[in-house]
Amino acid sequence: MKCKKCSQTAVIHLPQHNVAYCEEHFNDYFLNRVQKAIRKYSMIEENERVLVAVSGGKDSVSLWHALVKLNYNCDALFLDTGLGTPKLEELDQLAKKVGSNFIIYDAHEDLMGLDIPKIAKILKRPTCSVCGNVRRYLMNKFAVENGYDVLATGHNLDDEVSFLLGNLLNWQTGYLARQSPTLPKTHEKFVKKIKPLVLLTEKETYAYALINDLPFSEEKCPFSKNASSLLYKRVLNEIEMAQPGTKLRFYAGAQEFFKEKEPVQLRECAVCGYPTTEEVCSFCKMRERLKNALGE
Amino acid sequence: MKCKKCSQTAVIHLPQHNVAYCEEHFNDYFLNRVQKAIRKYSMIEENERVLVAVSGGKDSVSLWHALVKLNYNCDALFLDTGLGTPKLEELDQLAKKVGSNFIIYDAHEDLMGLDIPKIAKILKRPTCSVCGNVRRYLMNKFAVENGYDVLATGHNLDDEVSFLLGNLLNWQTGYLARQSPTLPKTHEKFVKKIKPLVLLTEKETYAYALINDLPFSEEKCPFSKNASSLLYKRVLNEIEMAQPGTKLRFYAGAQEFFKEKEPVQLRECAVCGYPTTEEVCSFCKMRERLKNALGE
Repeated sequence: MKCKKCSQTAVIHLPQHNVAYCEEHFNDYFLNRVQKAIRKYSMIEENERVLVAVSGGKDSVSLWHALVKLNYNCDALFLDTGLGTPKLEELDQLAKKVGSNFIIYDAHEDLMGLDIPKIAKILKRPTCSVCGNVRRYLMNKFAVENGYDVLATGHNLDDEVSFLLGNLLNWQTGYLARQSPTLPKTHEKFVKKIKPLVLLTEKETYAYALINDLPFSEEKCPFSKNASSLLYKRVLNEIEMAQPGTKLRFYAGAQEFFKEKEPVQLRECAVCGYPTTEEVCSFCKMRERLKNALGE
Repeated sequence: MKCKKCSQTAVIHLPQHNVAYCEEHFNDYFLNRVQKAIRKYSMIEENERVLVAVSGGKDSVSLWHALVKLNYNCDALFLDTGLGTPKLEELDQLAKKVGSNFIIYDAHEDLMGLDIPKIAKILKRPTCSVCGNVRRYLMNKFAVENGYDVLATGHNLDDEVSFLLGNLLNWQTGYLARQSPTLPKTHEKFVKKIKPLVLLTEKETYAYALINDLPFSEEKCPFSKNASSLLYKRVLNEIEMAQPGTKLRFYAGAQEFFKEKEPVQLRECAVCGYPTTEEVCSFCKMRERLKNALGE
């Protein structure tokens, strides 16, 4: 197969767009798709400072690299919660090479010296739920305290459509409105959240990371991928194979359909002052329960 | 595995309800599910006369048999459009045995002597679309002219969830409101349409037909099952295997979510007087185009 742009031998075939590309033109395509998502879903305005949540996997590292290439003013943040073993040194070298910052934030103090699996065990809650709670809270807090306007995460199209399918099968539609590619800043302590990879598949972010020789970890979080999301990804891939473009249509249609009519009203947590929909935010509630469980 | 009711050896296992049944108690279960759908979705009122659209396949024959067993006042109608070869004589014997009527309606005159594949070819339209148009029109007309209040079709849970998934993947939500298990009578010439098998899977209607030794044809219509609906059924079965009960939840949730707010306004076709949303109904439009194509 030939590259659509230059007729050299293609390295990747994208049936959803009915094209194939060589390495160089795949890179162009990838950056265009990121840019397209940013424009389509009003993700980044001029002069905004972007913090990229980097776990060390292919998606977040590719996202960071792509945003730097697209000349956005962005730094990467790795939240060390005792889960995962990304290639920290190589990521730091990458930062120097591309002219960005790679920040490591040690969350152990915020977590009272415990790691996430330990907390989940003490509180008898699912690990992924504790991890999500902690990440959302600390990432937002770090962004606010350090003057970032936007927090970008590496969710790709496969993540989003598998989440969407799971929620539709069970009609948990409340979650869907909050799942949009851009969550606007609705409080001075709640930075804008964006997902610039939503128009790109797992296969594409993987290819981008390989082609650009990015230092990513192939290790999967032992907790993060539950059986359901893998099942949904598998069946969606099956449908995509037979009907290329289904994932993109499914995703775009859902965004249109579940457009949030009004932003959720936020107030300030009685304990930490960060925004929440309730009296006390879920991070502070978790810490409270943890203190009780530890008898402090 | 033992029958949940009598502890005899079970003949069927239903993971979605976490039960197994012997033949006798499966029959009870099946009739209960049909009755439940009829009550839940207000399908049949007392003294209403029901016409069952019988194609001769497992679903429609099982539906007819179940409605008779549940003491509904119902007859079966086979619309002969030159497609399919049901076991007509045996169905007629079944009618006599259970005390119902099996009516054969020859649609060739309404179709100007042509059969459906021929019409589809002349009009350059998909066979299933022509067939659906013809069936909806003639079945409703027959019901109206012969004093039936309700037209029942054999759509099962698998049919409905595969349709639902296909429409959600493409967000063709306009179709979904019209897909409800009960379409009320909204015009004197538009009888109520119901689908009493929506709480039962293909596997269950097949088992019911076998257990009750019903004369059904295993032959598939060479046109009716398009590749997409088979694909959707396959992936939904994959999900159901891993998460029993998903199909039922998916279906019930969708009914709740897409509840039709207001019935569509119908007016009378300028040609035949039967209800339509447009100036001329789609059946009359088809006949008109056919006449033109044939140079009459």
